[in-house]
Amino acid sequence: MSEAVVTLDGWYTLQDFRKIDWASWKLLSNEERQAAIQEFQQFLDKLNEVQDQKEGSHTLYTILGHKADFMFMVLRPTLEELHEIENEFNKLTITEFTIPTYSYLSVVELSNYLAKDSDEDPYQNPYVRGRLYPILPKTQHVCFYPMDKRREGNDNWYMLPMEERRELMRSHGLIGRKYAGKIKQLICGSSGLDDFEWGVTLFSDDALQFKKIVYEMRFDEASARYGEFGAFFVGNLLEDDDLSRFLQV
Amino acid sequence: MSEAVVTLDGWYTLQDFRKIDWASWKLLSNEERQAAIQEFQQFLDKLNEVQDQKEGSHTLYTILGHKADFMFMVLRPTLEELHEIENEFNKLTITEFTIPTYSYLSVVELSNYLAKDSDEDPYQNPYVRGRLYPILPKTQHVCFYPMDKRREGNDNWYMLPMEERRELMRSHGLIGRKYAGKIKQLICGSSGLDDFEWGVTLFSDDALQFKKIVYEMRFDEASARYGEFGAFFVGNLLEDDDLSRFLQV
Amino acid sequence: MSEAVVTLDGWYTLQDFRKIDWASWKLLSNEERQAAIQEFQQFLDKLNEVQDQKEGSHTLYTILGHKADFMFMVLRPTLEELHEIENEFNKLTITEFTIPTYSYLSVVELSNYLAKDSDEDPYQNPYVRGRLYPILPKTQHVCFYPMDKRREGNDNWYMLPMEERRELMRSHGLIGRKYAGKIKQLICGSSGLDDFEWGVTLFSDDALQFKKIVYEMRFDEASARYGEFGAFFVGNLLEDDDLSRFLQV
Amino acid sequence: MSEAVVTLDGWYTLQDFRKIDWASWKLLSNEERQAAIQEFQQFLDKLNEVQDQKEGSHTLYTILGHKADFMFMVLRPTLEELHEIENEFNKLTITEFTIPTYSYLSVVELSNYLAKDSDEDPYQNPYVRGRLYPILPKTQHVCFYPMDKRREGNDNWYMLPMEERRELMRSHGLIGRKYAGKIKQLICGSSGLDDFEWGVTLFSDDALQFKKIVYEMRFDEASARYGEFGAFFVGNLLEDDDLSRFLQV
Amino acid sequence: MSEAVVTLDGWYTLQDFRKIDWASWKLLSNEERQAAIQEFQQFLDKLNEVQDQKEGSHTLYTILGHKADFMFMVLRPTLEELHEIENEFNKLTITEFTIPTYSYLSVVELSNYLAKDSDEDPYQNPYVRGRLYPILPKTQHVCFYPMDKRREGNDNWYMLPMEERRELMRSHGLIGRKYAGKIKQLICGSSGLDDFEWGVTLFSDDALQFKKIVYEMRFDEASARYGEFGAFFVGNLLEDDDLSRFLQV
Repeated sequence: MSEAVVTLDGWYTLQDFRKIDWASWKLLSNEERQAAIQEFQQFLDKLNEVQDQKEGSHTLYTILGHKADFMFMVLRPTLEELHEIENEFNKLTITEFTIPTYSYLSVVELSNYLAKDSDEDPYQNPYVRGRLYPILPKTQHVCFYPMDKRREGNDNWYMLPMEERRELMRSHGLIGRKYAGKIKQLICGSSGLDDFEWGVTLFSDDALQFKKIVYEMRFDEASARYGEFGAFFVGNLLEDDDLSRFLQV
Repeated sequence: MSEAVVTLDGWYTLQDFRKIDWASWKLLSNEERQAAIQEFQQFLDKLNEVQDQKEGSHTLYTILGHKADFMFMVLRPTLEELHEIENEFNKLTITEFTIPTYSYLSVVELSNYLAKDSDEDPYQNPYVRGRLYPILPKTQHVCFYPMDKRREGNDNWYMLPMEERRELMRSHGLIGRKYAGKIKQLICGSSGLDDFEWGVTLFSDDALQFKKIVYEMRFDEASARYGEFGAFFVGNLLEDDDLSRFLQV
Repeated sequence: MSEAVVTLDGWYTLQDFRKIDWASWKLLSNEERQAAIQEFQQFLDKLNEVQDQKEGSHTLYTILGHKADFMFMVLRPTLEELHEIENEFNKLTITEFTIPTYSYLSVVELSNYLAKDSDEDPYQNPYVRGRLYPILPKTQHVCFYPMDKRREGNDNWYMLPMEERRELMRSHGLIGRKYAGKIKQLICGSSGLDDFEWGVTLFSDDALQFKKIVYEMRFDEASARYGEFGAFFVGNLLEDDDLSRFLQV
Repeated sequence: MSEAVVTLDGWYTLQDFRKIDWASWKLLSNEERQAAIQEFQQFLDKLNEVQDQKEGSHTLYTILGHKADFMFMVLRPTLEELHEIENEFNKLTITEFTIPTYSYLSVVELSNYLAKDSDEDPYQNPYVRGRLYPILPKTQHVCFYPMDKRREGNDNWYMLPMEERRELMRSHGLIGRKYAGKIKQLICGSSGLDDFEWGVTLFSDDALQFKKIVYEMRFDEASARYGEFGAFFVGNLLEDDDLSRFLQV
Repeated sequence: MSEAVVTLDGWYTLQDFRKIDWASWKLLSNEERQAAIQEFQQFLDKLNEVQDQKEGSHTLYTILGHKADFMFMVLRPTLEELHEIENEFNKLTITEFTIPTYSYLSVVELSNYLAKDSDEDPYQNPYVRGRLYPILPKTQHVCFYPMDKRREGNDNWYMLPMEERRELMRSHGLIGRKYAGKIKQLICGSSGLDDFEWGVTLFSDDALQFKKIVYEMRFDEASARYGEFGAFFVGNLLEDDDLSRFLQV
């Protein structure tokens, strides 16, 4: 039996992808639509207050293509809080005009492959805390995809010795480091929580960097032999001020 | 031909996953919604009586994300009783506002890999009976996933000699034992009953334990080489007292 | 090239799986529902006459879970007759309140792996005729699943010499024989007729036997290395007398 | 690099599979239904004229089971003509009561594995022309399935030398020849046109022959090691005279 | 770790596939339909102006079969512009009568496998610019499919040394060159942007060339061993002048 690496776990994360039923939305009167947007805004205002107090974070991005029209992403310390938000969101007027197409449940995760021995409790380390309980950046673009490590014939990640996995992840991390300043990545673990083992969210002001990093990493053995990828969702930041324009018909 | 292990089989189990059509639910008047919730509560009251008499068990959990809004899980001695409950549930007013998204049919199972020879009829053993005919715990969180043992090229569980499977399961069980007190697991067999071979339901007051146990086990050869997993469903306990709040719009 | 085994082919079989749209069904008046059930009963009466004359057979079973609410299964000598029944069924009032979720088209089949040489025409043998043109039993439970023989790398059933396949099927048959008296199985071939190569229907008064036989057979090389299974559908007998109760709202 | 075989290409083929929304169809008045059938018949009359002039061909078959209620199949010299027919069909009243469930786009193809060297232009050969620009037969039954040649590990058709492929196809053809007089087969190539590489349509007055030929061929190495099959669609001839009966409610 | 090839990246590309809900479209009055078509035409007129200024490009093709009725394809320098067009398109009246069935997000890409060393900035090279920022050709037919390079056992493209990949791509390119004058191909990279790694769009006045090139290339090792293909979409040019005819009912 191979040894499992220790992970540090932060906030629970729910990514909720929705299409908009534009035809039905257009059937509302202008006043009804304004009221629905305003109600949505008030809902977001409450989340903003939580975020201001650093007790959670959230963001909205439009998504390109048929998979979804937008992604609503929320981070909270407990599943109870996450569900309360999902439940409240489901009851908004605006949500009546959306169709859920995908979602992802995970936990912000720091993998300890490269951890140094220390007596310190990592959960007290301010840098670590900033990573585990992040306020999401407001970059122009987002890229989300779930992934697994492969367990297939001779390409079985989970049968590799710890040392080999560590070396593969080190090399993998070196590529990631080349994109520092261009891409902020949020790695969430989802074993036991959702259908893949990780959910990766990339943030950047230059969407081309998503293509560059994913393509370059695919030549790295950790991905080339051991990476299995789900669907990719890409979109643009949807700030509160843009909501009216996005939804105006 | 490899030798099949003997299993002990308990109550039949139906897990019924449903989304709520919130937009239609909101079209009801307040009185209609109250009546529907009350009718649902009366239906649950009848199940509670059966549970009080230990002639079956059931539970409700909300589910996070787009896969479902809640899971209704029922255990009964016969398929006739299970179907009667499903049939009655299908005819409730509240159910008109739900959309079935997944379900799982199985039988509570104790696998006998580690059984000692004995003259005793295990079905008369009180400990065994408590495991086969369980009253479901009321933990804050639930995690359900179906799984298969792999039959692929050199990784074919069903071609392994009994001794090797026994040793793999023993090691697997040791990991499980580390989570005693944190996780209660209910293993149900579903060969010949549903699309996977097992349905696993984990109960815990700390959802993070679902991630930890599934991740740690994935490095164990029984999972790493031989485990195939379906979708994961995770959620929070929905007690009868919470129903009104969950459904209030 | 490996030699194909000769099969004996009996009645065509259509298994039609339907969900019920309970919410719409409830919108009918009590009289309309009674009329629809009566019309359905008259349709079944005509099928009963055919069955009484042993010119075909049919049955109804409820199905547990989200995959279907019931299975309607019909056997007839020709595809024209099968289609006529499907076409008539599609036009019933009750059928307006159903949603087709799955179906399977096949032919009752006897595989000749163990056949002895003989001058006799097997189609004149009364035992064989009883197997090829069966009146379906009225057991309490049913289990249906489609399956393929695997053709993958070193596990390629269709590349095995006839002798090896014969030996594997003999061993497979020995397991089946242990369940004589507990399970009646109907094997239908569907190469060129539907998406898998066989459709297996098991009938039993004890649903647990479905789990036992499928689990035990999975350790047999014929299944362990060469079996590929589709979805499993399990349910309870729905006799004509139970129709009203099943559909009453 | 392995050498591609030369193909001869005939008419473009569109196979359009539709379910009927019987519940909505029944909402029409008898007069409206008759008018819709008559309009459909006029549409078919125009296609019949084209077929009489041997400038194309078409046919209608009912399909058994949940995958479709009928298949509308059209052959034409150009994609523009095919699309014009699809576009006109989409606008018929009857089509409002259908749901597209599958379709297949391909080109009638003769594979040249066994071609003899010759100076003759094969497109001028009357036998070849009859095969490439066929008037579809009016057999009682049809069987359609798409297929690929496998490219997987050691079973990679496209990496085999031409000689080996030729030999495999010769053996495959010998089986086909045994069914001469029982089955007419139409092979259409669909590389670059649809999701599989070929679409196979079998025509026979005895549906059992579909099972026999597909089963027997599966033991042939060309299929056993190299065949990958999609869904199978089987049904009965739907002549213009049968339309009213098929659609009468 | 294998070395990633450098790519040159041009305009972002969104391919939006839609079915038409003909039954609902027919419910409009003739005037309403004319107004919807006119509004759509005005939307296209604005895109035409952008294209005239070579600041983007777009095209419309009908699609054959059930996968879609048409493809709307747009190229723009930024994801913001692409989304603005998608958002505006979603709000058109005509779009209320469409159902999104597929889409693809990618970036026009030139792969540098065969690049010669040079001091020149390729993005200043007029030939390169013409390839990266193309005005789409108006050929009679289009073929779109997404694809991956395989990473499976011994067939792992991303583990091959650069030299071997270069040689395979050179051979692959030679086949492509044989179709010069018959097919214009647009290669778009989509790693990190959509579910496959590339989106290939072929343009030709002879749809048979799609079949020929895809079939011939499948025998080339780069495809035979390393190509994984998604769905294929094929259709005919839909010029602005044809819109009324296409949509007329």
